Amino acid sequence: MPKVHNYSAGPCILPQEVFEEASKAVLNYNNSGLSILEMSHRSKDFVAVMEEARDLVKEILEVPDGYTVLFLQGGASLGFLVSAYNMMGENKKGGYINTGAWAKKAIKEADFMGESVLLASSEDKNNNYIPKGYSIPDDIDYLHYTSNNTIFGTQFKDIPETNIPLVCDMSSDIFSKKIDVSKFDIIYAGAQKNLGPAGTTLYIVKDSVLGNSSVDIPTMLNLKTHADKDSMFNTPPCFAIYTAMLTLRWLKKNGGLDWIEKRNEEKSALLYSEIDNNPLFEGTAAKEDRSSMNVTFVLTDESKAEEFDKMWNEEKINGLKGHRSVGGYRASMYNALPLESVQVLVNVMKKLALQIA
Amino acid sequence: MPKVHNYSAGPCILPQEVFEEASKAVLNYNNSGLSILEMSHRSKDFVAVMEEARDLVKEILEVPDGYTVLFLQGGASLGFLVSAYNMMGENKKGGYINTGAWAKKAIKEADFMGESVLLASSEDKNNNYIPKGYSIPDDIDYLHYTSNNTIFGTQFKDIPETNIPLVCDMSSDIFSKKIDVSKFDIIYAGAQKNLGPAGTTLYIVKDSVLGNSSVDIPTMLNLKTHADKDSMFNTPPCFAIYTAMLTLRWLKKNGGLDWIEKRNEEKSALLYSEIDNNPLFEGTAAKEDRSSMNVTFVLTDESKAEEFDKMWNEEKINGLKGHRSVGGYRASMYNALPLESVQVLVNVMKKLALQIA
Repeated sequence: MPKVHNYSAGPCILPQEVFEEASKAVLNYNNSGLSILEMSHRSKDFVAVMEEARDLVKEILEVPDGYTVLFLQGGASLGFLVSAYNMMGENKKGGYINTGAWAKKAIKEADFMGESVLLASSEDKNNNYIPKGYSIPDDIDYLHYTSNNTIFGTQFKDIPETNIPLVCDMSSDIFSKKIDVSKFDIIYAGAQKNLGPAGTTLYIVKDSVLGNSSVDIPTMLNLKTHADKDSMFNTPPCFAIYTAMLTLRWLKKNGGLDWIEKRNEEKSALLYSEIDNNPLFEGTAAKEDRSSMNVTFVLTDESKAEEFDKMWNEEKINGLKGHRSVGGYRASMYNALPLESVQVLVNVMKKLALQIA
Repeated sequence: MPKVHNYSAGPCILPQEVFEEASKAVLNYNNSGLSILEMSHRSKDFVAVMEEARDLVKEILEVPDGYTVLFLQGGASLGFLVSAYNMMGENKKGGYINTGAWAKKAIKEADFMGESVLLASSEDKNNNYIPKGYSIPDDIDYLHYTSNNTIFGTQFKDIPETNIPLVCDMSSDIFSKKIDVSKFDIIYAGAQKNLGPAGTTLYIVKDSVLGNSSVDIPTMLNLKTHADKDSMFNTPPCFAIYTAMLTLRWLKKNGGLDWIEKRNEEKSALLYSEIDNNPLFEGTAAKEDRSSMNVTFVLTDESKAEEFDKMWNEEKINGLKGHRSVGGYRASMYNALPLESVQVLVNVMKKLALQIA
């Protein structure tokens, strides 16, 4: 049982064994006498870390041939700009699905060097659902969406069906379940959910994208720059990549995506079931679009907030406060959060209901 | 005496006590029960880290009022682009001094949204000196230079005298000596030399620069975006910033820039004196422009290379190989490298000379 039940929305809980191994490496990496923090990124030892991290991404996600895996910097926030720059084609237009705050930020960046086309939006209902049944024009160069919306607790259950090249910000659900990488031209993801600590950003890019943009791209925003140098065009964020590698080792050892998908389903089923059956609570996202990563809910009677907050704090639950644009609560249940932590939260919710009854 | 004498050009040696403290925090930050890696960047604990890091920069460098200190991502390589975007004024021209590889990369990025004007270059002599006596036109918006050139072992001993706003890439000598911050509009520096591990980039920006560019800037490249949100517009590279904070605490505790400048002068004087007095070695940089951070030198008789390499390897000296564009050797002697490590190298050089004599 962990000391703290960490529901933080990101940076978030990582496996305990990753913390232990990373802690050792900060003192003395593999008995080299050097800290992982002082090793040259060109050293044999660090090049091996980068290669293993990349290979684990390919193996765990079953990345097909013809894709390049990169560990860069800047978070998804820079990814909004990078993906648009690299995907602009002859139309200089990208299609976007607005499912909330992150999607909107991506749209803004596309308008810097091209044009964004809004295909669908869930803003009419405070982004509490995933738009469906929209039409996709032929004259866009790509379709961009945010697979999981941390703030609103919604998640795409299916990949949009289209022949237009797909780009996806998967920051908050990559490595949580199986995905078909072959359907995407660019997948990008800030590491600080299921992949590792804050400080590195994963890109999975179809090779045909590299160097084929219709617009000029500054050096550091061009994915070809980084692909040509195996993520080492400039000094990489070594420790973040190393810790991501350890996290991927943990995922592989335990059974990969089959294992984690089942575990994540169990966790979210347990909490959603309590929300649906406990009269004191109510989910905020449309049922069919509920996220398995971020469970958003509110009290049906706001006057119970003080008591509820006191109870979960006493159980050493951390990070449960909802985002200001939704209110209420958000339970972020990333890969490393154990089922036991979810049970502790559910027990608090049951106890609150019993007190009232 | 350290286990390894780490002359790595960056990422590089940091103080041992920083490694020890950072290692503990990866397991359990301040007895919170949480790893520093899993803490929300919005948590009280991490906000305090960010504030302390910022305040230490201001205190140690004596940053005057009217400047903003930011911890961002992307390294100096993204800084080349960011600084040009933010400094472009009515002329849309930046003046550049080409002192080598990093300066050239900065020039390239200025040409993306404006025009670079080459004021001076040392390319005629493989960048082994710092240009002097060039004229500075009035119709440029800023003057950009690289204060220390890691590859070529040269360093600006004085700040260029001009009324044109100054921009400086100080990646490899910031915090090594006193500087007059008031003379600059933007100072930027990748952390991985004297400031901390790879993964964060320091910006010190005059407030009058913020929001005053003459060109449109993508959100993440606009320093105003980050200044408005205290470096928290998006998730910061928390661990790199935390470790930078620890390194700054170490620097302050030991006496700040007065102390470190004296220590760095002792170290470089010891090694340069050996290079100048030992007939087997020769420095590659012009004497008046020699860097106190990166000492570049060659053997006067290449046939001694095998023996010399064997000898320093046996003494557990690490990272002494020169950059391919200069050849020979490069001793990077950043803040945390102890004088003892320099003495070990000098002893090896003396021993080699004795063997020959």
